[in-house]
Amino acid sequence: MLDHRGKKPEWAPSESGDEFASRVVEGVKELEEQLHSSTAVPASPRPRRRRLTVNDYVEGVLSRNRTIIAQTITLVESNNPVHMETGQQVLKQLLPYTGNSIRVGITGVPGAGKSTLIEALGTMLCEQGKRVAVLAVDPSSTITKGSILGDKTRMETLSRHPNAFIRPSASGGTLGGVNRKSRETMLICEAAGFDVILVETVGVGQSEVTVRSMVDFFLLVMLTGGGDELQGIKKGVMELVDAIFVNKADGKNKQIALGAKAEFNRILHFLQPITEGWTPKAYTCSALTGEGIAEMWQVIQAFTGKTQRSGVFDTRRRKQTIDWMYTMVEDYLRTSFFNHPEVSSIIPVIEKAVGNGEVSATMAAKQLLKIFEDQ
Amino acid sequence: MLDHRGKKPEWAPSESGDEFASRVVEGVKELEEQLHSSTAVPASPRPRRRRLTVNDYVEGVLSRNRTIIAQTITLVESNNPVHMETGQQVLKQLLPYTGNSIRVGITGVPGAGKSTLIEALGTMLCEQGKRVAVLAVDPSSTITKGSILGDKTRMETLSRHPNAFIRPSASGGTLGGVNRKSRETMLICEAAGFDVILVETVGVGQSEVTVRSMVDFFLLVMLTGGGDELQGIKKGVMELVDAIFVNKADGKNKQIALGAKAEFNRILHFLQPITEGWTPKAYTCSALTGEGIAEMWQVIQAFTGKTQRSGVFDTRRRKQTIDWMYTMVEDYLRTSFFNHPEVSSIIPVIEKAVGNGEVSATMAAKQLLKIFEDQ
Repeated sequence: MLDHRGKKPEWAPSESGDEFASRVVEGVKELEEQLHSSTAVPASPRPRRRRLTVNDYVEGVLSRNRTIIAQTITLVESNNPVHMETGQQVLKQLLPYTGNSIRVGITGVPGAGKSTLIEALGTMLCEQGKRVAVLAVDPSSTITKGSILGDKTRMETLSRHPNAFIRPSASGGTLGGVNRKSRETMLICEAAGFDVILVETVGVGQSEVTVRSMVDFFLLVMLTGGGDELQGIKKGVMELVDAIFVNKADGKNKQIALGAKAEFNRILHFLQPITEGWTPKAYTCSALTGEGIAEMWQVIQAFTGKTQRSGVFDTRRRKQTIDWMYTMVEDYLRTSFFNHPEVSSIIPVIEKAVGNGEVSATMAAKQLLKIFEDQ
Repeated sequence: MLDHRGKKPEWAPSESGDEFASRVVEGVKELEEQLHSSTAVPASPRPRRRRLTVNDYVEGVLSRNRTIIAQTITLVESNNPVHMETGQQVLKQLLPYTGNSIRVGITGVPGAGKSTLIEALGTMLCEQGKRVAVLAVDPSSTITKGSILGDKTRMETLSRHPNAFIRPSASGGTLGGVNRKSRETMLICEAAGFDVILVETVGVGQSEVTVRSMVDFFLLVMLTGGGDELQGIKKGVMELVDAIFVNKADGKNKQIALGAKAEFNRILHFLQPITEGWTPKAYTCSALTGEGIAEMWQVIQAFTGKTQRSGVFDTRRRKQTIDWMYTMVEDYLRTSFFNHPEVSSIIPVIEKAVGNGEVSATMAAKQLLKIFEDQ
């Protein structure tokens, strides 16, 4: 039952010191007043640098200063309560400037060629004058303590382009933490004027569901191959996507890729589309030859055009933000319960008794909640 | 965001009166003592009848008294706190006698022929000397206030068989409530010596996920037809099943049904099996001619044999019960939050502000939790 537990979310209200808690309770209005007074915040994420004020961060991001953009992301990624509070104040100021990008999620098994595809798509868009940010959601990096995705060395051309900004996955914390950090990083990038945000992920745990819940368009990159090679697609992933791109459709792979595309189209036909009014289809592409990359962007543009006209685009974004708020609330409630000392100490006994059929689940749930509520 | 709210679960600890709450907190041990004293309980679900004691219910169920079985189910289905407590005491006594049936979930769109299929399968099993209980999980009946499923008039032969017991869906309450009632009804039936429990559901909301989480084997009934007729299978349902039976494979439909079967096998090939060590396959059957009904039972027996030998069967049952306990805990925590007067009154304002991008989701979540925790 490990998935029921976990660390208390780092943004949780009662863990951030009395001063912080008392400020939060005063609500957003008081915070706004604080913001307008522009006082220096007590600490910056990197103590050796000059301490930046909330306004320094905000103005730096809005003026597209790359160093400050990176520092602001570091600020919201910090688990330090003081940094987090400053980060929230900065975000509050940036919110009016967010929402103007196209948010594209990209998933696929390792080896499917996500990085080279992002490099190809991103470079094409940058050369068209668009500003492109590449982010990564990788909960597995909390285990390896590294940043598997968004590796700049794997996107050499793109990372050198002045219109591109690549940010590796935030490390540390739970998927919930990575989720918050990625969403807030996305908002910072939007305030900094990036037109397209590419969010890369791998199929670890719930990461695809998480990325789907923060993007407009969700794209699955598949390898060429047919029959058994296609088996074992992660449960439910095909039902989350707006398009499938069969990558590496070049050379002798091309025919096989076309076969795979047909196969995927057959499967997609049986699934309910995730986006109202949009029918997901499969395509082929090659990050190597560049074939299909322009088409990929056309598909994304057709999608945004259609959903913006129908209102589905805005409705989804609004719902995503509200849902995310409730996800944070529920994460907090769940972890409060499982971190309750008496609850967590009795849980092994209760699980055993319930698993063995000695106590009914209803009775056990009542008992646990009674212990929790009596503190 | 309606799905986040809902009535407080009827089994919730703090709603059941002080006397009840204080008993629960004493824990299971004290309850056991109470049970052994065999005192009459204060009220029975139908006041006009003689008041049954906990032991009356327990002995009635164990001696397979059909009237008492039905009364015991009514008792655990009751939302009256006193009845619920008695029900829990009865269940506690019955628990050692539960777990010996095969639990089969059956889903499919309306018109797929679930009822006639259950009638055919159930009658065949009853004639083999097995005792068969048919239950229904139908959260939609909370809206229609009727019992759509498990309609005895649609299972005429089966309902007259002495080895069969048909119980329509419990009405009233949320899906969580229906969930609890169905699970506890299943336990009562097992204690009453039923060998096979058939749990019927329709694809309303999360009902398939709910039924999947309480059965050993999950079966999807499909209609004949190919191509477009197969489209729009509910999202994720095919990934929950252990077998698909294409029904109405008779007369001129037979060839089409065989085509559909092949199509489903192709799709199943791409999906991860839900049960470790078992590959879901598609079959054809006809409730009308009886063809394929014996095979259906063979498939279920092959499944239980294989999973019981591998240990997957017992592991899943244990996990299902523990997960269910946590589902109840989380339902309670969620509804406590959304029913909090100040939280529920501020939610429309907060949702609007977050949806409009005036307040960040993180800040809003913090505020809501602060309000909730300050009571």
